[in-house]
Amino acid sequence: MSTTNNFQNGEVSIDRFDLHLGSECNEEEPVVLGVDGGTTSTICVCMPLLRISNSHNHLPDPLPVLGRAIAGCSNHNSVGETLARDTLEQVMMEALSTSGSKKSAVQAVCLGVSGVNHPNDQERILNWLREIFPRHVKLYVQNDAVAALASGSMGKLHGCVLIAGTGSIAYGFSEDGKEARAAGGGPVLGDWGSGYGIAAQALTSVIRAHDGRGPHTMLTNSILKSLSLSSPDELIGWTYADPSWARIAALVPVVVTCAEDGDDVANQILNDAVEELALTVKAVVHKLGLCGQDGSGEFPVVLVGGVLIPNKNWDIGQKVVDRLIKTYPGAFPVLPKVEPAVGAALLGCNFYMKEKERNGVI
Amino acid sequence: MSTTNNFQNGEVSIDRFDLHLGSECNEEEPVVLGVDGGTTSTICVCMPLLRISNSHNHLPDPLPVLGRAIAGCSNHNSVGETLARDTLEQVMMEALSTSGSKKSAVQAVCLGVSGVNHPNDQERILNWLREIFPRHVKLYVQNDAVAALASGSMGKLHGCVLIAGTGSIAYGFSEDGKEARAAGGGPVLGDWGSGYGIAAQALTSVIRAHDGRGPHTMLTNSILKSLSLSSPDELIGWTYADPSWARIAALVPVVVTCAEDGDDVANQILNDAVEELALTVKAVVHKLGLCGQDGSGEFPVVLVGGVLIPNKNWDIGQKVVDRLIKTYPGAFPVLPKVEPAVGAALLGCNFYMKEKERNGVI
Repeated sequence: MSTTNNFQNGEVSIDRFDLHLGSECNEEEPVVLGVDGGTTSTICVCMPLLRISNSHNHLPDPLPVLGRAIAGCSNHNSVGETLARDTLEQVMMEALSTSGSKKSAVQAVCLGVSGVNHPNDQERILNWLREIFPRHVKLYVQNDAVAALASGSMGKLHGCVLIAGTGSIAYGFSEDGKEARAAGGGPVLGDWGSGYGIAAQALTSVIRAHDGRGPHTMLTNSILKSLSLSSPDELIGWTYADPSWARIAALVPVVVTCAEDGDDVANQILNDAVEELALTVKAVVHKLGLCGQDGSGEFPVVLVGGVLIPNKNWDIGQKVVDRLIKTYPGAFPVLPKVEPAVGAALLGCNFYMKEKERNGVI
Repeated sequence: MSTTNNFQNGEVSIDRFDLHLGSECNEEEPVVLGVDGGTTSTICVCMPLLRISNSHNHLPDPLPVLGRAIAGCSNHNSVGETLARDTLEQVMMEALSTSGSKKSAVQAVCLGVSGVNHPNDQERILNWLREIFPRHVKLYVQNDAVAALASGSMGKLHGCVLIAGTGSIAYGFSEDGKEARAAGGGPVLGDWGSGYGIAAQALTSVIRAHDGRGPHTMLTNSILKSLSLSSPDELIGWTYADPSWARIAALVPVVVTCAEDGDDVANQILNDAVEELALTVKAVVHKLGLCGQDGSGEFPVVLVGGVLIPNKNWDIGQKVVDRLIKTYPGAFPVLPKVEPAVGAALLGCNFYMKEKERNGVI
C-alpha cells in the first residue's frame, strides 16, 4: 500500500509550547499525557506540551517522548470500573515517573479508551481523572479510535480512521468539528469486517463444510492444524473453552494464507470483509460530507490495526482503499508513523491550544 | 402448523416392562431415569421401565411419570465439570426421591445433555455416572438433541429433530441406526437460524440503521422500548453488560412482531433464519438418506424450541417445513407432546430393551 501523509506537506506543524526546547527534561516543564487504552493493554506517553497548528510544517523527528509505560486492559466493559480506574492511574503515574516530570507539570491529559461509546462512559472516566489531577489540568476523554486518527493526522482532527484489529470501527471528524462513527459495537452487533468477524466466518465455514451445509474449503485443514485439533467437531469445545475475541481473531493470517492459495471460501470471506469495512468508512464520510459538495474533496483515511497491515499479498487495507476511491476519488490512505498513545498526546496538545486560544491566553 | 405423529398410527407401542402395571409406585419396581440437561436448566424424570416396540400401539396416556425434579445448568462448557456433575447427581437423586423409588430400582439412565459434541464429552459424563450408579445399571449419554427427537418419536430413533431455541441444531437417525448432525456449534460457529442468531441480526440492523450502513427499521424503536434504552448507542453497553446468549435470544418475539407489522428488515432476518434452519435439516436428511432412494420417503421432522413454537402469525417452524417439503415431499412435522426429559427416559427404555434383546434375555 502506498503511504501518503498530507500532514507532512505544509498542513501541520508541531513546536514545543512555552518554548522549552531543551532535550533534557526539566521536571517542571509543562507536559501532556496521552493514553491509549485498548482491550488488551493500556499505553501512556508523557510528552512536552507542543504547539500544533495548521499553518506551517516543523515536525520534530522523532517526536519528543519523555516517558512511556504499559499496563493491562483499561476497558471498563471488560475488567470492571475499579480495575479500569486503577490501571489508568498506575500507567499515567509510571509514565510521569519515567519521564522525570512532576505530577504538577501536567497541563493536559488526553485518553483514547476503547469502550467509550456514550457520554455516560466519557463522564465516568472524567470523574476518575478529576480525582487524580488538580482542577487546572485539562482533561479529554475520547474513544480510542479518535486517538488512532490523531496518530495518523499528527494531532489534527480531520478525516476518517478505520480500525480493524480484533474489532472494527470507523470514526471521523469534519474540518468544522462535526464527528461521526460507524460500527465498533463488537461481534454481537455485527462488526463483520473485524479480525474477529473474519475468523468467526472462517470457523463457521469449516463447520458448514463438515456437516454438509457448505462447500469444501482449505480452511478446514489449515485451521485445525494451526489449533492442533484433529476434527472440526473439536472446534465447538475450542470456542467454548475461552470466549476471548482476540483468541479467535488470531486466526486471520490463516484465512489470508488460504485466500492467497486460491481457496474460494477464504477469498469470499475476505472480500465480504473488505465490503463491510468500506461500507463502514463510507457511512462516516457520507454523514460528515468529508468528500465536499462535488464528491471529489480530499480527505485522509487513517488505517490502523492488524487486519489492515500490508504484510501479505492479499492486502485487505489496500482493497478497502481501492473500493473507497471508486466512490470518493479524493480519499487517500495514511499509515500512522506513531503509536495511538502519541496520537492521544498530540490531540491533548491540540485541544489544550484551542482552549487557550478561545480564552485569549495565546 | 398441523401436527402429525405417525407414531400414534400403529408404529410404536409402549408397555411397562416386567409387568409392573399398578398405578401405585413400588419402591423396588424397575425404573429408568431420563435427563434433559440444557444450558439454562436440567430436568430429570423417573419412569417405569417401559417396553417400546414398533409393532403395535398401546401408549399409556398420560405416560406414567413417577417423579420429576429440576436443577440449574449442567452443560460442562458453561459451568465447569464439578458443578455440572454435582447438578446431575442432585437432580437424579431428587427425581428418584419424589418418585418413592429406591436407587437400587434404577435399571437404566439416559441423559440428553447439551454440550455433548464429541466422544470425549460422552466418556466424561459416563465416568461421572459410573461413580454414582452400580455396575449393572445401563448408562446412555447423548446430545440433548437426541432426547428432543425421542420426545417427538416416543423413544424411537428415526427421523430428524430440529431445535431452535437460544441455539440451533439438527440431529437425525436413519432406520438402520446411522446418525448425523448439523449446526449446534453456538454463535461463534454460525448458528444463524437460532434465537440468538435472529436477535443478534436484529440488533445489528438497529446499529446499521443508526450509523448509516443500513435502512431504517421498526426494530430500532421496538427493541429500544423493550430494553428500556433511549438510544442505539446504548445497545453497545447493553450487550457488553451480560454476554448471555439467552438474554439476547429473548428479543426474538420483538423481531417477529416487527415482521408481522410489515417491517422489511425484520422479514428479511426471519426469512434468512428459515433458510438457515431448512438448510440445517436438509444436510442431515441428505447424509442419512432419510428420504429414500427416490426422494419421496416419509420421515418425521420433530420441531423443538421457542423459535419454532407456532404462537404467532409469522410461523417460523411452518415456513421451515414448507421449505423442506419442496425438496422432500415425505417430510412431516411432529410437535412433541412430552418434554425432552421424558424423551430421554423413553430412549433409555428403548436402548435397554435392545441391549436385552441382543443378549437374548427377552
